Amino acid sequence: MFEAAELGRTLPSKRYDTEVRALRSDLLNAHFALRGQKYPVIVIVSGADGAGKGELVHRLNEWLDPRGVETHAFWNPSDEELERPAYWRFWRAMPGRGRIGIFFGSWYTAPIIRRVYGETKHKEFDLEVDRIVAFEQMLVDDGAVLVKLWLHMPKQAQKKRIKKLEADGRAGPDDWDHYERYDKFTKVSARALGRTDSGAAPWHVIEATDRNYREVTAGTILLEAIQAKLKAATSAPVTNAVSVPEKPAKAKGAVARPRTESVLGKVDLSQRLTDAEYGRQIERLQSKLSKLAWAAHAAKRSMVMVFEGWDAAGKGSASRRVTNAMDPRLYRVIGFAAPTDEERAQHYLWRFWRHLPRAGYSAIFDRSWYGRVLVERVEGFTAEADWSRAYHEINEFEEQLTSHGMVVNKFWLHISKDEQLRRFKERQTVTWKQYKITDEDWRNRKKWPEYERAVDDMVARCSSTRAPWTLVAGNDKRFARVQILKTVVRRLEAAL
Amino acid sequence: MFEAAELGRTLPSKRYDTEVRALRSDLLNAHFALRGQKYPVIVIVSGADGAGKGELVHRLNEWLDPRGVETHAFWNPSDEELERPAYWRFWRAMPGRGRIGIFFGSWYTAPIIRRVYGETKHKEFDLEVDRIVAFEQMLVDDGAVLVKLWLHMPKQAQKKRIKKLEADGRAGPDDWDHYERYDKFTKVSARALGRTDSGAAPWHVIEATDRNYREVTAGTILLEAIQAKLKAATSAPVTNAVSVPEKPAKAKGAVARPRTESVLGKVDLSQRLTDAEYGRQIERLQSKLSKLAWAAHAAKRSMVMVFEGWDAAGKGSASRRVTNAMDPRLYRVIGFAAPTDEERAQHYLWRFWRHLPRAGYSAIFDRSWYGRVLVERVEGFTAEADWSRAYHEINEFEEQLTSHGMVVNKFWLHISKDEQLRRFKERQTVTWKQYKITDEDWRNRKKWPEYERAVDDMVARCSSTRAPWTLVAGNDKRFARVQILKTVVRRLEAAL
Repeated sequence: MFEAAELGRTLPSKRYDTEVRALRSDLLNAHFALRGQKYPVIVIVSGADGAGKGELVHRLNEWLDPRGVETHAFWNPSDEELERPAYWRFWRAMPGRGRIGIFFGSWYTAPIIRRVYGETKHKEFDLEVDRIVAFEQMLVDDGAVLVKLWLHMPKQAQKKRIKKLEADGRAGPDDWDHYERYDKFTKVSARALGRTDSGAAPWHVIEATDRNYREVTAGTILLEAIQAKLKAATSAPVTNAVSVPEKPAKAKGAVARPRTESVLGKVDLSQRLTDAEYGRQIERLQSKLSKLAWAAHAAKRSMVMVFEGWDAAGKGSASRRVTNAMDPRLYRVIGFAAPTDEERAQHYLWRFWRHLPRAGYSAIFDRSWYGRVLVERVEGFTAEADWSRAYHEINEFEEQLTSHGMVVNKFWLHISKDEQLRRFKERQTVTWKQYKITDEDWRNRKKWPEYERAVDDMVARCSSTRAPWTLVAGNDKRFARVQILKTVVRRLEAAL
Repeated sequence: MFEAAELGRTLPSKRYDTEVRALRSDLLNAHFALRGQKYPVIVIVSGADGAGKGELVHRLNEWLDPRGVETHAFWNPSDEELERPAYWRFWRAMPGRGRIGIFFGSWYTAPIIRRVYGETKHKEFDLEVDRIVAFEQMLVDDGAVLVKLWLHMPKQAQKKRIKKLEADGRAGPDDWDHYERYDKFTKVSARALGRTDSGAAPWHVIEATDRNYREVTAGTILLEAIQAKLKAATSAPVTNAVSVPEKPAKAKGAVARPRTESVLGKVDLSQRLTDAEYGRQIERLQSKLSKLAWAAHAAKRSMVMVFEGWDAAGKGSASRRVTNAMDPRLYRVIGFAAPTDEERAQHYLWRFWRHLPRAGYSAIFDRSWYGRVLVERVEGFTAEADWSRAYHEINEFEEQLTSHGMVVNKFWLHISKDEQLRRFKERQTVTWKQYKITDEDWRNRKKWPEYERAVDDMVARCSSTRAPWTLVAGNDKRFARVQILKTVVRRLEAAL
């Protein structure tokens, strides 16, 4: 991977000046053209210590329009970061659409360093690299331009350079330590680069010995990547969150799976509990959950609960039976309505990542990332190419939560169509329930079959042992609440 | 303070049911009316352990529209929170305008607990309480409705209650420990409440022995507070960030101070550096700063730098001379243009609080909170009542930064009007500088005298020993850069 980058290429000052003048002007123009585009540009600056990554970051900042660029250095993670899945800190720093984010350090840093220091085995390392591939593919699928730069330095040059940095007081604290492991670093990095060098997110290895050369080369690569995307975006249809809605007709036939009975049809909606039975069970379960929530806090285990379901299925009241049993210090309920503009400027998963709980705490998501494959699919807000990709993206997302140790519970509150009608009518008459019923609910009701199909696909494609869907029999509210509490208690007990 | 709350008031179940029905419906209506209003509602739920604060939080969540309310529990702070001034975590959690935020725990908790445990002296405690008064006043001035609830329990009742909670597995980990200090808690709390019980943000002490009584009482207080504000807001003109612009004419005479020579007039703009002198100094200073930045990181000291100045005064290039000397892992540059909608929904200081650096890191603010008393004042974007209050608010804000140990440097880059003209013209001709000159720059230039007056007031009213303004002689860019670097180095040396 790095052989080609040891040819001793330089760029004499005079030629540098001329090239920079042109490059700078072109970069600025490209940067301006980027404004208002529906995708971000992410520049990863990585490579050997002392290869001039910091200087390059400074230079790019100088060349670009400061209003449209942001730099994030990923170094020692905070405890808030350590207490979430590893990618949380990157999601947190993602540039919005139309902006450039320069990442000094990235999702490559920790896997490579851990492997070099022998903290991970070969196999784990490969798994981490696979995760990178999936993550980058997801960003690129969403339209992002990913510019991956690797500054390479021959061993001797690195030594010389760190010495000089040290004399200037500019050396980083780990520089010498990493230098000692130069060969191992090179080997591990080469493997990481090789396996993540995809057509959609290719690596650019830049020979870093000469400052002028490496900076102009990096700038040119960035420029060309933006220009290529600008050109492609005007000639090809964009398929991402903000694209033109598809006709629902098209959405229907999307998943080519033989249709048998809906999975929802198998839910026994006749299940009921008597008042007495409900009272007994709910009290016992809530008391259990209360203790378990404190135990989870002590054990630094988190819970993520997703509540989805038909309108009027009782999501709110059911989730309250869970939260009422927990100390308010231990959980947060996050409701999702229209995204804010900061959220709209990001990948659709971003607004959920930002609300992941810290270790020992729980988050209840009232509506969730599944909106992508439910309402967005049914209403045609999202193109088929995008929502059908979402199943995979969601599985990958939840896999990150569970492998971080989070207990993930997903509830679909199911009721019959008749029961929904009964509740809609009731809501229209009870004063303090009237706000719960809108024209939209009636409109959604007309699309019952389409939603049923979407729920079917969702459950079939996004249910795993570690992040299972629970289909809740909701015609009897008491039964539903107990079923949910039982599930939460059982899974928490199993995890602790 | 608490005597009146020990009368043993209760609310029988039957009356409770009737009252709740009406209350719930009224609360929902008030909550709906709140949507779209230009102010948030902040409900502080505090009081003795075991007084039912958690239950009240659950109940309020049940009664309100879940889409418009968010609950934040302030408990063990994270390291990200500990590494910022104490109020950062509250700013982080502020509800946006038109929303209700329920705060379980608040800015009262830590000062009271620290005092009870003898970690602070009487005098320090009073200072912390004074800070609360200023903070709450600021929120209320911005339009916020502050509902402060204190659940009070007689000692014996508290004991009984903690025992019961314990049996149910619901007791918090500190409950017994706090109970041991009941009398001290009561005394310290009474002092805090007494001193913060203002007309704008009054305390409501609620007798908490009977659950029905305390919940209906709390709900009623919240309802009345929202209703009163809704009524007041429709009858009186709103004066906050989003109010109707004042005429600039009115803004002119705002600060009644005899006008002598402008403070900017005293800056010697003829100061220059030769190329050779500049080269020598800049290299020496950058090398020093590079080492100091690492030393600050090791000492966990942060720096906050503000860059303001005339258009074309060279803010960008000057701040780059500072950042280029620092490892990109150690700082972030945050540029401020138009606020996002999440920012617009908050107090104007919120968008700056969110970017405060962690311990050991630096943040460079390219434009800042001073926009409130510069562009917003001059352009009439903000009413006089609001921007003239901002000097005080800004001082209070910066005082929190400096007393947390942050090194605060504020630079006004000054150039003469002629020099600005020269640079504007130059920008129009150099290709990659053209983006830097807009019609707005020319419009701003016409308001030079108004801006001069605003800068004068700003420097006079917001310069302190710990957070001083440095007026930079910017006609010679080299001199300006060296002056800024010198200042940063000197202040950092003094701090370390």
